[in-house]
Amino acid sequence: MTQIPYLTPLSDAEQRAAGLPEIWPLALADRVRFSELDPLNHVNNVAYLIWFETARVSYFKQINLSAYKNAAVEPRIVIRHGEMEWLQEMRADEDYVIVSKTIAYRNTSFTMHQEIWSGGTKRAAFTCVIVLLQPDGSGRFPLPEPLKAHFHTVDGVPVAQE
Amino acid sequence: MTQIPYLTPLSDAEQRAAGLPEIWPLALADRVRFSELDPLNHVNNVAYLIWFETARVSYFKQINLSAYKNAAVEPRIVIRHGEMEWLQEMRADEDYVIVSKTIAYRNTSFTMHQEIWSGGTKRAAFTCVIVLLQPDGSGRFPLPEPLKAHFHTVDGVPVAQE
Amino acid sequence: MTQIPYLTPLSDAEQRAAGLPEIWPLALADRVRFSELDPLNHVNNVAYLIWFETARVSYFKQINLSAYKNAAVEPRIVIRHGEMEWLQEMRADEDYVIVSKTIAYRNTSFTMHQEIWSGGTKRAAFTCVIVLLQPDGSGRFPLPEPLKAHFHTVDGVPVAQE
Amino acid sequence: MTQIPYLTPLSDAEQRAAGLPEIWPLALADRVRFSELDPLNHVNNVAYLIWFETARVSYFKQINLSAYKNAAVEPRIVIRHGEMEWLQEMRADEDYVIVSKTIAYRNTSFTMHQEIWSGGTKRAAFTCVIVLLQPDGSGRFPLPEPLKAHFHTVDGVPVAQE
Repeated sequence: MTQIPYLTPLSDAEQRAAGLPEIWPLALADRVRFSELDPLNHVNNVAYLIWFETARVSYFKQINLSAYKNAAVEPRIVIRHGEMEWLQEMRADEDYVIVSKTIAYRNTSFTMHQEIWSGGTKRAAFTCVIVLLQPDGSGRFPLPEPLKAHFHTVDGVPVAQE
Repeated sequence: MTQIPYLTPLSDAEQRAAGLPEIWPLALADRVRFSELDPLNHVNNVAYLIWFETARVSYFKQINLSAYKNAAVEPRIVIRHGEMEWLQEMRADEDYVIVSKTIAYRNTSFTMHQEIWSGGTKRAAFTCVIVLLQPDGSGRFPLPEPLKAHFHTVDGVPVAQE
Repeated sequence: MTQIPYLTPLSDAEQRAAGLPEIWPLALADRVRFSELDPLNHVNNVAYLIWFETARVSYFKQINLSAYKNAAVEPRIVIRHGEMEWLQEMRADEDYVIVSKTIAYRNTSFTMHQEIWSGGTKRAAFTCVIVLLQPDGSGRFPLPEPLKAHFHTVDGVPVAQE
Repeated sequence: MTQIPYLTPLSDAEQRAAGLPEIWPLALADRVRFSELDPLNHVNNVAYLIWFETARVSYFKQINLSAYKNAAVEPRIVIRHGEMEWLQEMRADEDYVIVSKTIAYRNTSFTMHQEIWSGGTKRAAFTCVIVLLQPDGSGRFPLPEPLKAHFHTVDGVPVAQE
């Protein structure tokens, strides 16, 4: 197998080559670092959450939700609830792919699902509810229409889901 | 109010003085550090998970589940599933209390609930399922009887729950 | 020995009780956390730098250099050069004291020295040069006179050093 | 410019394309992550140390000093002294290259130099002294002869330097 391109959105072919059973709207490859290992030489439980966070920020930039450049005008993106599964331990130097998509939305919030895949097996999964607030935190920020359209056409959220 | 004692199990009186509405079997006070702040000057989402982890390790030592001293004989403590709520943001220098207890158990696993309290309000909550494995990871490790007794007498798990 | 008070400036008596051979203008006790351990069960090399950073931020607030509250008016505090010594490894649950003081200054910069002590032995030391910039980063920010006075009267910087 | 290959040793041509003024024995590209940003939206000072650590572990594997697989027989690699320069701040999403080489050695220790380059400018530099210990920490571990040869032939350490 050719070298997987790290930190760069994977094409459909690259996702298949990396052993993903289905194609995701955003898939980013990375590799375990020494600082992420715990005293048992496994990846620390919390490191997965940082990987998911990194991918979410990439995703938010990709869907034009926020460039994280101007806190005075961009919506605040707040995570309210998360459900994490640690399925199979990871070790030093392993390659992995973080996949991310939105699976549902409401007026001012949406639900994302993310997974970590490595060597053809799912290692971890995270589902979280994200709320948009006004830049000054004063109230909710409605999802822009183009964002909703993106959720349907790219991420595959069913049209009549709400 | 007198200074809260940090990093030390709080007595019942200290828990009440810290604004906790009920008394927990383990309550540890700490303070937000600079390195835990994100670009918005809030505590990063992932920092809470590290706080909960720190408190769980203290809890596991307190209940004699593991001293984290001898990986050859001590059970492996593996977290399988976690549900996280981020309820109210935290900021630089805020004091907080991490409270922890077990709320249910089965033959080789148990469920913990943990919360972060600061200034009389709940800031975050985490519920997770922990599985015990043999030291070499070869199979499940049954909960020792004294541990089950501790869950009932100290943590208040109802006797007939299983 | 009575319990050391964590995360709180230690009095002279508390510094002596903690095994410090001399008294420092700022001494803060803390304890190794699980997340700071590396695969060899020692404190990771980088964790010491975070401890020193935490103590520097406390020190900057104590000397009224910055409250880290208003980036529009407070000087930017930039570390330019650091020299680190790792002297003796640290392990899980060890208590330690971070001591900090300024040892020299110039018009727009100053030099700090920090050490980690545990169990009566020095574990690590850090000497760094800190530069003050205008809030917008446009140029140097002169050290306020009261700060220079503090360096002499509290930290013991010799008067004729410059 | 074509996309830089991340997390993979860069060829001489790739190093030149990345803006490095000279070719290094090991050069690894990476990108700033969200979790590495501080409240001023710059890369936190400590993050650079983690980047250097990640690259050193890769370097130690590349030169066959340790695979970090068997602590019972592999030498302990201990960093004793480090000198860090923070030269120019880095920001969200910036690409960078970490370059590493050994510049001197003695019987049981060696000195490494590492730099961070981004956009054609040096952002940070680190020089450190590394000591080898027996696997049980009982005493010094002599540098293997092939390692010394590697330092001369690949890293360019002058032959008569000691």
